Amino acid sequence: MSAQIIPVPPFDLIVFGGTGDLAMRKLMPALYHRDRDGQLPGEARIIGISRSALDDAGYRAKVEDAFIRHVPKAFHDPAVKHRFLARLSYVRLDITADGGWKRLHELLDGFESRIRVFYLATAPDLFGQVAGELKQEALITPETRVVLEKPLGKDLASARATNNAVGAVFNERQIFRIDHYLGKETVQNLMALRFANSLFEPLWNYGEIDHVQLTVAETVGVEGRAAYYDAAGALRDMVQNHLLQLLCLTALEPPQHFEADAVRDEKLKVLRGLRRMSGNEVLTNVVRAQYTAGAVNGSVVPGFADEIGHPTATETFVALKAYVDNWRWAAVPFYMRTGKRLPRRVSEIVIQFRSVPHSIFGRDAGKPDPNRLVMRLQPDEGVQLQLMSKDPGPGGMRLKRTPLNLSYIDTFKTRWPEAYERLILDVVRGNATLFMRRDEVEEAWAWVEPILDEWARSDVPVSHYPAGTWGPSAAVALMARDGRNWVDPET
Amino acid sequence: MSAQIIPVPPFDLIVFGGTGDLAMRKLMPALYHRDRDGQLPGEARIIGISRSALDDAGYRAKVEDAFIRHVPKAFHDPAVKHRFLARLSYVRLDITADGGWKRLHELLDGFESRIRVFYLATAPDLFGQVAGELKQEALITPETRVVLEKPLGKDLASARATNNAVGAVFNERQIFRIDHYLGKETVQNLMALRFANSLFEPLWNYGEIDHVQLTVAETVGVEGRAAYYDAAGALRDMVQNHLLQLLCLTALEPPQHFEADAVRDEKLKVLRGLRRMSGNEVLTNVVRAQYTAGAVNGSVVPGFADEIGHPTATETFVALKAYVDNWRWAAVPFYMRTGKRLPRRVSEIVIQFRSVPHSIFGRDAGKPDPNRLVMRLQPDEGVQLQLMSKDPGPGGMRLKRTPLNLSYIDTFKTRWPEAYERLILDVVRGNATLFMRRDEVEEAWAWVEPILDEWARSDVPVSHYPAGTWGPSAAVALMARDGRNWVDPET
Repeated sequence: MSAQIIPVPPFDLIVFGGTGDLAMRKLMPALYHRDRDGQLPGEARIIGISRSALDDAGYRAKVEDAFIRHVPKAFHDPAVKHRFLARLSYVRLDITADGGWKRLHELLDGFESRIRVFYLATAPDLFGQVAGELKQEALITPETRVVLEKPLGKDLASARATNNAVGAVFNERQIFRIDHYLGKETVQNLMALRFANSLFEPLWNYGEIDHVQLTVAETVGVEGRAAYYDAAGALRDMVQNHLLQLLCLTALEPPQHFEADAVRDEKLKVLRGLRRMSGNEVLTNVVRAQYTAGAVNGSVVPGFADEIGHPTATETFVALKAYVDNWRWAAVPFYMRTGKRLPRRVSEIVIQFRSVPHSIFGRDAGKPDPNRLVMRLQPDEGVQLQLMSKDPGPGGMRLKRTPLNLSYIDTFKTRWPEAYERLILDVVRGNATLFMRRDEVEEAWAWVEPILDEWARSDVPVSHYPAGTWGPSAAVALMARDGRNWVDPET
Repeated sequence: MSAQIIPVPPFDLIVFGGTGDLAMRKLMPALYHRDRDGQLPGEARIIGISRSALDDAGYRAKVEDAFIRHVPKAFHDPAVKHRFLARLSYVRLDITADGGWKRLHELLDGFESRIRVFYLATAPDLFGQVAGELKQEALITPETRVVLEKPLGKDLASARATNNAVGAVFNERQIFRIDHYLGKETVQNLMALRFANSLFEPLWNYGEIDHVQLTVAETVGVEGRAAYYDAAGALRDMVQNHLLQLLCLTALEPPQHFEADAVRDEKLKVLRGLRRMSGNEVLTNVVRAQYTAGAVNGSVVPGFADEIGHPTATETFVALKAYVDNWRWAAVPFYMRTGKRLPRRVSEIVIQFRSVPHSIFGRDAGKPDPNRLVMRLQPDEGVQLQLMSKDPGPGGMRLKRTPLNLSYIDTFKTRWPEAYERLILDVVRGNATLFMRRDEVEEAWAWVEPILDEWARSDVPVSHYPAGTWGPSAAVALMARDGRNWVDPET
């Protein structure tokens, strides 16, 4: 892989929320991997910021400790670890109180010509305030970018408020709204498959595609995020961002160039084309449910209400049917589902093509299954094309479903980077192609909001599903009514 | 595989040319394999006929001996061999003289209600005579079929003469003209791929396909067939039958049903659509050449003229460009090539799709290769779809050609039958789907004949290529002039 590694320019990365879960689990390991591949220039520095009482040594020890859990053993390299930890500094700073800025100034003043990245891995309601303080402290240079972690708002109004507050300080081109799904290799490969192959474009429309399925399934429950999750629910936590982003990339028209605004213009057109649901349509086309006690991966787990300690109407599962009203996708349903405590952790995009219009092989051959293109985003990234072929034999014609596999692990005998590795470096490079523009985020909220409103207004209660199942029967019925069914991910 | 094995009805198979190369190398091993899988009914008998002085025991010994060379060791089963050899009888009969019919009558009389198959594996100029004698001997029952081995004629007139002579005795539905290429699993799978998948039909036309390549390459020289081959040449030996049949199956419109006349009607339409070449077009679009001394697979081999012992203008290599003039294929070239003493034994159909019309990924990503569907007929049957995908990495977008493979060996963990196994049983079943109808054979000759005529008329000499190369430079130039190139088969 080393031939492809082009170091980025020198940078200072300042992580607000520097001792938090995301920093320890994802950001620091991602940066370590990039350092190990020789992609971080010698001068690059990383500054963690939080309220914890730590010094540099304590922070380094904490990061080193995180590596034990979050960097696979095979990649531990003492020399690289030593080099990486030396890049780290720590600043104790309580954004809601005074003080701490002095130490940050000591570190950054005089480095104004470098690329500077403020990574806001804090609670989102602090984004505006942090941005304001950065401005007041005169820490924003022309080469400064700011990264906003999800969730960006809890509805259209709050998203707008945050975008306004951050936008009052930074230009849109300095703002990188992260959705780590966009950094996944398979998601980028979806772009390569669609636009570097002439095969797919003639098939990629209402004439040839029967429907699209998008699944983001988790086995975990709420873990440490009970309060946040109970307030948010699956629609805000997964549908408004990840699932709609995947839908956009599946559905977009060919951009003129694979470059930030060209791609985001096309995504925005998809979001604007999403058919807004009326109240009645919400009740028909959206299934919401909450898990009850059950068993996942052989372990008994409590229900959601027990986990958070009180009865609640928050959904942990959503299944819905959407339409993109344009010439390409007229009348092609996009079915989406996401949930916690499902039987498997898996994210997949399934493009199901229409059935053959007429079977020339007769009944004995078996009915041809429709073709499918399955893009697996996790856990094992890969692409599968499901074809029918002839079952070998000395007589007759029997058809057999045959998968053509492109497994990333098997095909590319190299470690391939995690989404955050690419995304952090794209921020340094100033490449916003895989980040969400303000108008996209707000348009996604605008589509989601009528669903939230109808749920708030309606007295239809949340339904339930036992942990360890693929959601409530209503989710099955949502597709069965259309004569279709969910493709349960293959192992 | 046993679940799919349905025994055929009882039959008597009478092989003219019963001690010949084809019988020993292909037919008897094929029948043995079917017996081993339990597909031959207990009553089925096989009668070898030739001029050799042999009795039943001698014939059985000869067949048993052939199995040592032509049935892989893993499939030798003493009990099956014993059962199989007991089915064999031998009749000494010289078709050009009198006598021998009495013994055949002794074997067949009283078995008129059975399916009876006369397999003519003799010189083709005897086909008419054998048919006449069978009629005179009153050996043709309503359930009799006759199999004609290739070559069927050396030009249109001789093919017609043979068809007339055989047709005077048998109905067309009793006549099975064999082209064993049609029995190959991948060739049948081409039908399954095209018509059991909705994916390919929208792509299968002049709008999406740039061109088609058909390659049938041999490493052998003329072996024991010098006299025949010197009279025939590659155009008659390979192009008129195998290559045109492969072209037909690639190009045909969807038949209403996968059944003999529906399929053959569509093949005939393709042959009728093949653009006839004028004399000038022959000189431009057809390359003929003969191998000179060289090295194949590391061994030094003599040139063709040395092998047959005198100078000759016979071609051992043909490359040509053909067009099918219909709505589906307008202006899509079909490039064909076949030859002896080429570097590898391989038969392939390559569908090359058009390039993407516009590259959105920029120069750094690399130019996307055009997509290809490669159907390998031999030696290792399989299908490969060549796509571009994203080379995994933490930055940028680099495209990489990625094959999606359907290898028959790897996918179907079972022995799969040789073409003759299927074809012989299809004759017993009376299923002519994979056999050539009279009008097809004659139409193919009608297309080939102007080429033969022009070669005879023109004083352009045959060109030469060293054994062990992919033919003369003129074959490369044939495609290079169109800005294309032959896909040399991958290992």
